[in-house]
Amino acid sequence: MTGDVIALESVYAAAERVAGRLHRTPMVEAETLNERFGGRFTLKAELFQKTGSYKVRGILNKVLTLTADERARGVITLSAGNAAGSLAWAARAAGIPATVVMPAGAVPAKVEAARAYGAEVVLAEGDLLAAYEGLRDERDLTAVHPFDDPEVIAGAGTVGLELVADRPDLDTVLVPIGGGGLISGVSLVIKRLLPSARVIGIEPIGADVVSRSLASGIPEKLPTARSVADGLAAPMCGVHTLAHIQQYVDEVVRVSEESLVEATRLVMSRTKLALEPAAAAPFAALLEGAITLRPGALTACVISGGNLDVTTVLTS
Amino acid sequence: MTGDVIALESVYAAAERVAGRLHRTPMVEAETLNERFGGRFTLKAELFQKTGSYKVRGILNKVLTLTADERARGVITLSAGNAAGSLAWAARAAGIPATVVMPAGAVPAKVEAARAYGAEVVLAEGDLLAAYEGLRDERDLTAVHPFDDPEVIAGAGTVGLELVADRPDLDTVLVPIGGGGLISGVSLVIKRLLPSARVIGIEPIGADVVSRSLASGIPEKLPTARSVADGLAAPMCGVHTLAHIQQYVDEVVRVSEESLVEATRLVMSRTKLALEPAAAAPFAALLEGAITLRPGALTACVISGGNLDVTTVLTS
Repeated sequence: MTGDVIALESVYAAAERVAGRLHRTPMVEAETLNERFGGRFTLKAELFQKTGSYKVRGILNKVLTLTADERARGVITLSAGNAAGSLAWAARAAGIPATVVMPAGAVPAKVEAARAYGAEVVLAEGDLLAAYEGLRDERDLTAVHPFDDPEVIAGAGTVGLELVADRPDLDTVLVPIGGGGLISGVSLVIKRLLPSARVIGIEPIGADVVSRSLASGIPEKLPTARSVADGLAAPMCGVHTLAHIQQYVDEVVRVSEESLVEATRLVMSRTKLALEPAAAAPFAALLEGAITLRPGALTACVISGGNLDVTTVLTS
Repeated sequence: MTGDVIALESVYAAAERVAGRLHRTPMVEAETLNERFGGRFTLKAELFQKTGSYKVRGILNKVLTLTADERARGVITLSAGNAAGSLAWAARAAGIPATVVMPAGAVPAKVEAARAYGAEVVLAEGDLLAAYEGLRDERDLTAVHPFDDPEVIAGAGTVGLELVADRPDLDTVLVPIGGGGLISGVSLVIKRLLPSARVIGIEPIGADVVSRSLASGIPEKLPTARSVADGLAAPMCGVHTLAHIQQYVDEVVRVSEESLVEATRLVMSRTKLALEPAAAAPFAALLEGAITLRPGALTACVISGGNLDVTTVLTS
């Protein structure tokens, strides 16, 4: 099974479909990061997006393309967090019931957010994917994959459209990678509209399913995927996402847990953005010296979300 | 000894003096806080100010009004943190040497920031005020009080000018109180320009020197002033700040440490702003039910700074 890449027109259609329902997030300049890393950075602040993450772009787009019958059956997804909150929010907006399967160890605030938006949350102790597939089939629910779906990828691509519109001078885009949905949409748009720009993805060493899939050429699964960047701990790569990453992404870099923690604190202290560790992945790679910046060139980093576990803040 | 209130013209002069050197910070809307507290809130995002705090407004204004002789002697201040970083930054901008006396328990990032901006940091184990006065006299340095100075208050007042310009429909302004510099400048401006608006201050129970000073009618000192909101743990009220607060502030509310921690986490999770606990004080008061909002009215909260101790983030 191989996936086809989506058409740029699908991203334009997604942008039109979600317009007015989501925020057009700002680009944030960060002089102190420029000094620290010797580059020129601009941050796409998706942590200010509805539900606190870019994820809602793709999920809402998908929900809005469902047929009346698919909606009537109710929707289900599996997620460590941000897709759960996004589906709960999008389903509520569409007036349909949502079920989300989350790992038992998910960040409590993400579980609460999904519940607060009205979803039924099912916490899975063991195999997340098996729990999700079982429930989906048993209840005949409409599956909304958290990333491996053309409409979800098209929605994520709207981040790329805004990047290009706001900073057509960008040279490099750094994108966190979980299952690859965000970078699939963004890289497609960047390579079509700004072909000379680089797109580099970053994933945790402990959840490096995309690197493994690129090496083997097929979408891999991981028995366990763990990271402090819970938003990046996808246990599988997608058919569709692998196809996009193979075609459009220049490089995928793996980062350590230590770098992710340090990067989160660094970016938070310098920018005053309460980003989640997934969103700091580009700076983890920079801390490790894994990315070479082109002198004077503009680097855009997608700050993918801000659903941080705040119960750790001010503990001592 | 009593202090006179400053003239509104001093605030306009400060605004002109610092223009172009500091950020005009944005107002941030926060729909989820509106839902949580049943009000209409707008946040003055001073955490995005240069040095990460409103404090630099007053300190820079003061430094820019010093005589050539006062500058040549070098400047000194005492601070739990934000005035230290602000003076270090402003002195560097003015090309003069700075010394800052900080408590030994200051947030490490605040100490590092002062050093990074080029100041000599002296950590005081015991009486902060005594250490500061001793060093000031011994070295014949020019004193820059962190809050109890007409020019520092005038600089803080520029926050009020921007509030009025951006949201002339505001009904209530909630302002964190340490030694009272911020609320002195802001309340003066609000009461002169929008006389029907309320100004309410919030200070920690463990550092309630302004409440005590209002009760006694003279500027009090505290043997110890401790709070998780380190930015509010001033051990003394000022002569000038007390005069402004007596004349212009409607009410001062005291909040618990527990509420400050809860409010910091709540506001961070809802707004994705990495605010420091001092800045969350208005929401601590709201959590305690200590402030009654007028139905439908707009409440502005000054998010005074973002120099959070990020080493606590992602610990578990």
